[in-house]
Amino acid sequence: MNDSYLNFVNSPLGARVARSLHLPKPEVLRRYRADAPEFDGIVAVGAGPSPQLLDALAGVIARIGMTSVAHAGASAWMPLANRHGLMTGRFEPAQLAGHAAGSQASVRALVFDASGIADSAQLDTVYAFFHDALRSLDKCGRIVVLGRPPEACASPRQWTAQRALEGVTRSLGKEARRGIASNLVYVAEGSKSSAESSTTSSVEHHNDSGIESTLRFFLSPRSAYVSGQVVRIGTAPSAPGEDFDWTQPLAGQRAVVTGAARGIGAAIANVLAAQGAHVTGIDVPAATDALDATMRQISGTALPFDIAAPETPAQIAAALDELGADVFVHNAGITKDKTIAKMAEPAWRDVIDINLSAQERIDDALLEAGTLRDGGRIVCVSSIGGIAGNLGQTNYAASKAGVIGRVQSMAPHLAKRRITINAVAPGFIETQMTAKMPLAIREAGRRMNSMSQGGQPVDVAQTIAWLAHPGSAGITGQVVRVCGQSLIGA
Amino acid sequence: MNDSYLNFVNSPLGARVARSLHLPKPEVLRRYRADAPEFDGIVAVGAGPSPQLLDALAGVIARIGMTSVAHAGASAWMPLANRHGLMTGRFEPAQLAGHAAGSQASVRALVFDASGIADSAQLDTVYAFFHDALRSLDKCGRIVVLGRPPEACASPRQWTAQRALEGVTRSLGKEARRGIASNLVYVAEGSKSSAESSTTSSVEHHNDSGIESTLRFFLSPRSAYVSGQVVRIGTAPSAPGEDFDWTQPLAGQRAVVTGAARGIGAAIANVLAAQGAHVTGIDVPAATDALDATMRQISGTALPFDIAAPETPAQIAAALDELGADVFVHNAGITKDKTIAKMAEPAWRDVIDINLSAQERIDDALLEAGTLRDGGRIVCVSSIGGIAGNLGQTNYAASKAGVIGRVQSMAPHLAKRRITINAVAPGFIETQMTAKMPLAIREAGRRMNSMSQGGQPVDVAQTIAWLAHPGSAGITGQVVRVCGQSLIGA
Repeated sequence: MNDSYLNFVNSPLGARVARSLHLPKPEVLRRYRADAPEFDGIVAVGAGPSPQLLDALAGVIARIGMTSVAHAGASAWMPLANRHGLMTGRFEPAQLAGHAAGSQASVRALVFDASGIADSAQLDTVYAFFHDALRSLDKCGRIVVLGRPPEACASPRQWTAQRALEGVTRSLGKEARRGIASNLVYVAEGSKSSAESSTTSSVEHHNDSGIESTLRFFLSPRSAYVSGQVVRIGTAPSAPGEDFDWTQPLAGQRAVVTGAARGIGAAIANVLAAQGAHVTGIDVPAATDALDATMRQISGTALPFDIAAPETPAQIAAALDELGADVFVHNAGITKDKTIAKMAEPAWRDVIDINLSAQERIDDALLEAGTLRDGGRIVCVSSIGGIAGNLGQTNYAASKAGVIGRVQSMAPHLAKRRITINAVAPGFIETQMTAKMPLAIREAGRRMNSMSQGGQPVDVAQTIAWLAHPGSAGITGQVVRVCGQSLIGA
Repeated sequence: MNDSYLNFVNSPLGARVARSLHLPKPEVLRRYRADAPEFDGIVAVGAGPSPQLLDALAGVIARIGMTSVAHAGASAWMPLANRHGLMTGRFEPAQLAGHAAGSQASVRALVFDASGIADSAQLDTVYAFFHDALRSLDKCGRIVVLGRPPEACASPRQWTAQRALEGVTRSLGKEARRGIASNLVYVAEGSKSSAESSTTSSVEHHNDSGIESTLRFFLSPRSAYVSGQVVRIGTAPSAPGEDFDWTQPLAGQRAVVTGAARGIGAAIANVLAAQGAHVTGIDVPAATDALDATMRQISGTALPFDIAAPETPAQIAAALDELGADVFVHNAGITKDKTIAKMAEPAWRDVIDINLSAQERIDDALLEAGTLRDGGRIVCVSSIGGIAGNLGQTNYAASKAGVIGRVQSMAPHLAKRRITINAVAPGFIETQMTAKMPLAIREAGRRMNSMSQGGQPVDVAQTIAWLAHPGSAGITGQVVRVCGQSLIGA
């Protein structure tokens, strides 16, 4: 729960010690606070040839109240920014302007529109932007590259060039350090809006409003511990209307969270409630006191159910009654670690049943009963162990790999009801569970990522809230790691 | 080139020192040698409910001359083994038989047929087999799990359970250590053979002969450094005939290897030649002497071409003349490492052009000219850096991520000509390049994988030879890491 090394090297004395000994100095990550502005500062915008997403980007930057500067390669930016009433200027690299890195020339985010890149040779536009701009990026800043889903590209060369962007964003995350997150967003080409066929504009406008919830998330301190990720946004119509309240995106919605008594589950319940949802928390009867306390703070409803019990799916459906639920978060999970040769059969069965099979039974029951409403959201908690496997966790890794299969397999089935299903895969998160690890393993887990620190439960919760957002209808069947770009992967 | 720690801890004195200090002791990996039998010893066979691949498995084990024992869960094995004239017995766990681990009860491979698993609860059959059998597995042994491609499963529950197998095999690789490789092979359900409609057999026989080249590879010492991988075999008809010479699979074929003068490229040329291919090696004119020497040893043809030169694709096509090529290996690549802020533009352009764009130009030319024959094989060398990104390698990572896009995008286009295209992604391989790394980085790269050591160029070459095999027609559009199950991933 407490990273004493991070606290030390960020104290006045500790910072001096760390500097003189060349110790790594993890940044204190900038996280969302209700009492501070979510968005401020400057976005530096770059673009490759024929960028198609700048109009949507300019609209979002204008609405969230950031300002912008345009790199020399993004010549299309100025007229678009003007159209959206967005303050903008030219990007001046810190070196050219005679400023030291981190001086007043610094920016909060670097966003590059790579959607028009159709050939590997055109990747030099990506280089040119980040070569000029990376040093101007503030600590805890953001790198977002926007591209087109490779698998939807018309030609192999375009697919290849779009796929190459992954190598860039992942490398940038590892180079940037200083609490900076770097992510790649592939935006499916939507139907063209009617404005496009008009001859009054020389710039193409696409119906790319489905990217707003995602752009907001990645530009916000809410995404503090999400880095090195690749997210695909499909074409499902999802733009909230003009009068949508982005500060309370879940207002009027009903959310259910399993394992909600404490830890990551309690953080999820808190964040969903803070965004306007009524939360029903489920946890085992033995945790009733903690569950009641958590729910009381957020005026939620406590359901002391064991999710593995055969009668529970029907009981949940009954408890949610005719109001149903809009968001269901499968967070409950257990570990029973042993190498497989020493593992007793109940340790295998229980972990698979609670972490995986129970989710299947509950979803089947709620979907059949119509308890989870059309247009709803399912978010499952997987794990980095489900991606990479782990020593002593064959059972846990199988269950969490199965969760990935669940979201991939259910997504097409649920699309006709406009329900999305996604997973988050936490890396090293500071919880009571990780606090009990042996020191060496805990320290390795904490430091082996681009943030040089573990995440907080709220980082997982904020990522789930983004996936649960009404504006995230285009995101389904995906797995997003919340791992600070952990070295550990598949 | 020389891992002195591995050599030391495997010396009589070093082994005692390592034991007393609890130092990790990487195994000397068992690799293929022409003067030793490729296959020997016992395969322990396990199975889940309704296994569908045991017949094909029994045929392969019989043909390669290994023997088998069947776990209690694989009751269908005995009659199938008998049908193929395969020596078989019951698997007796080392503990039950009163043997210490590693005694004469030991087996060379554990193979589990999970193809019939249709629900997460049935995963306990996987647990039961590996719980009983893992301790009986020899050092440098093999774990192979056979499943069905999740994305082709009829129900979400089956998809989920099949996807869960990834968590198992990856965890087993990390638990087993001792030079043991663990891999998952998803076999697409082929058309059922006519034998199946006969009533003379109570066991289902499927036309799964397309798995033989892959089963042989994963059971062979040729796959020494390939672990933690997931391979999909499609339904392309590929079974070599009865009289196929498995010791010379590339006999009569013509292969081309770029960057063939030394290092990994020379190893590729050697292995392809040893398997019967005539090899044409390409390398830059400055490396002509080394290229000539490498080609002379294998009676190959040397082409001193710079692959990045605009005229090279046409020159290659002309040099290969009307005989064309059956196998093309894009191995040539360079690094020019710098953080992006310090990287000069030529370093970006050259790396992208040589590692990625040149491959595109060459393939386009050879495919258009018909130089690469129908039914041929393209294998590209990607990198773990293309998967995970790397500090100081935005250019290299982009090029190698692009290579992944290339094989994914070209595979469907080439399928109608029965040409496959795949990539290998080496992890830490002992070469002149890695020998020049700073000690700390080199040691981290060597040890941060399940084999606790770097791979050898021949490990990459053997993997490429498997993908180039006439029997591997069902494998296309895939990326196989040769990394000893490196911790480092996406």
